[in-house]
Amino acid sequence: MSTTTTAAPTLTTSLAREFAAVLPEHCVITDEVGLRSYECDGLTGFRQVPAVVVLPRDTEEVAACVRVCARHGVPFVARGAGTGLSGGALPVADGVVISLQKLRRILEIDVENRRAVLEPGVFNLDISRAAAPHGLYYAPDPSSQQVCTIGGNVAENSGGAHCLKYGFTTNHVLEMEVVLADGSVITLGAPTAEQAGPDLRGVFLGSEGTLGICTKVTVRLLRKPEAVRTVLADFPSIEAAGETVGAIVDASIVPAAVEMMDSLAMEAAEAAVGAGYTVESPSALIIELDGPAEECDEQFAEITRICEEHGSTRIHVADSADERARVWKGRKAAFAAVGRISPDYIVQDGVVPRTRLAEVLSQIAEMGSEVGLRVANVFHAGDGNLHPLVLYSESAGEHDAAEDLSSRIAELCVELGGSLSGEHGIGADKACSMGRMFTDDDLAVMQRVRTGFDPEGLCNPGKIFPTPRLCGERPGPFRAHPLEEAGVISRL
Amino acid sequence: MSTTTTAAPTLTTSLAREFAAVLPEHCVITDEVGLRSYECDGLTGFRQVPAVVVLPRDTEEVAACVRVCARHGVPFVARGAGTGLSGGALPVADGVVISLQKLRRILEIDVENRRAVLEPGVFNLDISRAAAPHGLYYAPDPSSQQVCTIGGNVAENSGGAHCLKYGFTTNHVLEMEVVLADGSVITLGAPTAEQAGPDLRGVFLGSEGTLGICTKVTVRLLRKPEAVRTVLADFPSIEAAGETVGAIVDASIVPAAVEMMDSLAMEAAEAAVGAGYTVESPSALIIELDGPAEECDEQFAEITRICEEHGSTRIHVADSADERARVWKGRKAAFAAVGRISPDYIVQDGVVPRTRLAEVLSQIAEMGSEVGLRVANVFHAGDGNLHPLVLYSESAGEHDAAEDLSSRIAELCVELGGSLSGEHGIGADKACSMGRMFTDDDLAVMQRVRTGFDPEGLCNPGKIFPTPRLCGERPGPFRAHPLEEAGVISRL
Repeated sequence: MSTTTTAAPTLTTSLAREFAAVLPEHCVITDEVGLRSYECDGLTGFRQVPAVVVLPRDTEEVAACVRVCARHGVPFVARGAGTGLSGGALPVADGVVISLQKLRRILEIDVENRRAVLEPGVFNLDISRAAAPHGLYYAPDPSSQQVCTIGGNVAENSGGAHCLKYGFTTNHVLEMEVVLADGSVITLGAPTAEQAGPDLRGVFLGSEGTLGICTKVTVRLLRKPEAVRTVLADFPSIEAAGETVGAIVDASIVPAAVEMMDSLAMEAAEAAVGAGYTVESPSALIIELDGPAEECDEQFAEITRICEEHGSTRIHVADSADERARVWKGRKAAFAAVGRISPDYIVQDGVVPRTRLAEVLSQIAEMGSEVGLRVANVFHAGDGNLHPLVLYSESAGEHDAAEDLSSRIAELCVELGGSLSGEHGIGADKACSMGRMFTDDDLAVMQRVRTGFDPEGLCNPGKIFPTPRLCGERPGPFRAHPLEEAGVISRL
Repeated sequence: MSTTTTAAPTLTTSLAREFAAVLPEHCVITDEVGLRSYECDGLTGFRQVPAVVVLPRDTEEVAACVRVCARHGVPFVARGAGTGLSGGALPVADGVVISLQKLRRILEIDVENRRAVLEPGVFNLDISRAAAPHGLYYAPDPSSQQVCTIGGNVAENSGGAHCLKYGFTTNHVLEMEVVLADGSVITLGAPTAEQAGPDLRGVFLGSEGTLGICTKVTVRLLRKPEAVRTVLADFPSIEAAGETVGAIVDASIVPAAVEMMDSLAMEAAEAAVGAGYTVESPSALIIELDGPAEECDEQFAEITRICEEHGSTRIHVADSADERARVWKGRKAAFAAVGRISPDYIVQDGVVPRTRLAEVLSQIAEMGSEVGLRVANVFHAGDGNLHPLVLYSESAGEHDAAEDLSSRIAELCVELGGSLSGEHGIGADKACSMGRMFTDDDLAVMQRVRTGFDPEGLCNPGKIFPTPRLCGERPGPFRAHPLEEAGVISRL
């Protein structure tokens, strides 16, 4: 890695001059106010002002910017909309941010082959909007889909509520154009579902900007289902809701989505949106079915029966498109809405095998009450992907306890046979926790593969991969952020 | 690469002695008759006797064998059942074959979480057999499923007739234990569907033995569908059958399988199996639906209508489980059955976008008649994965013309926006054709990633990756096998 820690004015000036030679003037940002807009992403708690921000307009300009960085050995971070929750787009000190917000063209909607060719800055929801006149849509739907970009989705292998049935971003990306750290442009994947040669497409998906910059992406489009049924079912306990999810899966029904919310999450969402949730209910499931109308109706009858068997206190079907939109708006706004019931909060992201949902939820509740902090739960129950929200007050001095609780929750997921992250990524946030899940040999191979794409380590250094220098010698602990320890970034 | 080309007796003796120190005597093969059993796989036309064959019995013994190879800089090739069709398990001269046939235990069937933990030598079909008492099965079903191993499926990312609906091996493998070329043992992936960190699991799937040796694999099991409907529909032309496939997909029906056979393929299969095909029909589709019974019935009605609209001359439903098994036995035996109507044949494997099926099939027919060779077509029509069988007679001196025609067919697939290989892999067969599909920069990254796993290039060298030494300087041509040109292997 070539991160410099000396004062950077000379380097910045020289970088800015070279960027100005390959980009129009308004596409190079060096003033402090402009740079501050790029100092953090959706991960609360950390910020770092970059040396320069550039806004290239096409692949050739991205490659030209990367070549400037490579000549100076300066690290760079690609950035979409900056909505990521693990600090993947957090700048590196004295580094460059390459914003892809100007690459936002939908290049092609290929109706016959059901594909779309996109620049990375296209908003997720705009893909489905463009495909809608042809009866098609793009399936992965992160809660931030109105404002997050497909390039960011590629970097984080983003999921969403409908991943249970439709899979993650990696299941929908066929081909990518990628600018490597030396400025060369390569193609990963192929326009057909079958792909020849080693699957570098797959390793790039979710690599969080550490392997290169995606400048063009071909995604699959799906035909819109004939019917959609959205059911809201209240339960007398989190356990009853968890067991219901298991029973649905055991009945061989694969709903499009099965989301669980607890009363705290519903209280927050209801305050923000008025989605029609029963806030006094300890727990609720949002179950969505899609497909042929007859099949939906049949499955709906079975799901109603299963919910009743598990003690559901209210089963409500969202009848109109409007009501369905409101139910989902509440769910998708739940993270942000938690701000209405708590001054501060941390969003955690972990996975457990579905069969251990009830166990992990009761342990989380216990851990929260031990330290006197409330934890709201709103998550993708069908695939065991938890999003506990740890509520705290910065001004009451609860920050460290909240960070600690949140980390211990992620650790608990790994202990129960799950994963450190479901869909928010490792980023800067969990790099030093990778040792909890992977051995030194595992990590060494990841690092060497990374080097295969980026020999000099200029693509988004400090993310995903723990390094002895940053994480210390202690084996795989949940610890303070490595870049903070190294003095590269500062805490808010 | 450290392939030695000097006479090998000393090296062989010394290798054999070291293997004998880590394995029982009967697990080290050095006699010529024994070695000859391992000289080729399912790729016709090439053979190479290895220096030594070892048969380790567990992960530790595999790692010990690999360490012996590493100490001597000797390349090794892992081998399952040797049913691969692209020469992935073809030995390297003076190299070692590490057979995994003794690692064949089913370690766990986890019914609750629907997972199976397997050693690599387990036969594909045995997974479903072991899961059947619990109402579960393993979805990917290559035609060779009775005799091919899950380790080989991992290496080739194997498909099968039901990939249209259920995806490839990569969609069903959660976690793998892998022995690297230095003998270290790593874990790729995680037991849950969501996986943290870069997806090295994905890049390993389909890497054809060039990254390491998989010694344990956790796969997803699916619940058996309530109902299965298998339909055999004859068509007056290949084009009519092709258009029917398009119409089915446009109707938003995703059958479990859509297979197409032409009259030549049916003639061969019928001669071997008596599956009930109409051999005088120019073309037939096997369409299989699975899922809830009502849904199957509804979709069957619609498919019948679509087939009739496209001029189907006969629509036959396989009523009993027996008849269904016979229909599939014919299809799965079709490759081998071609031996009944032609002394020799080459199986090609390429992909085109589904919308170009009719075009590619008529061009293949034209190319065949130009050189006076028959081409039988039997393939996965739903996803555009062709398997043209080029029929020829070795004794009539038609071999080179057949090889050339087969190569030009693969080339045509790439030109039409498809892929060099759908599911049989690149292996030794198509390494020098990779330049048709990938640029030098693309290939350089693949090579560097490979080096990240295997810095010394001891894992199955000469497969997948074209090298200037073996493929010469000409850009990406379809040419003679590189190992043959280098004098490492000899033609049959």
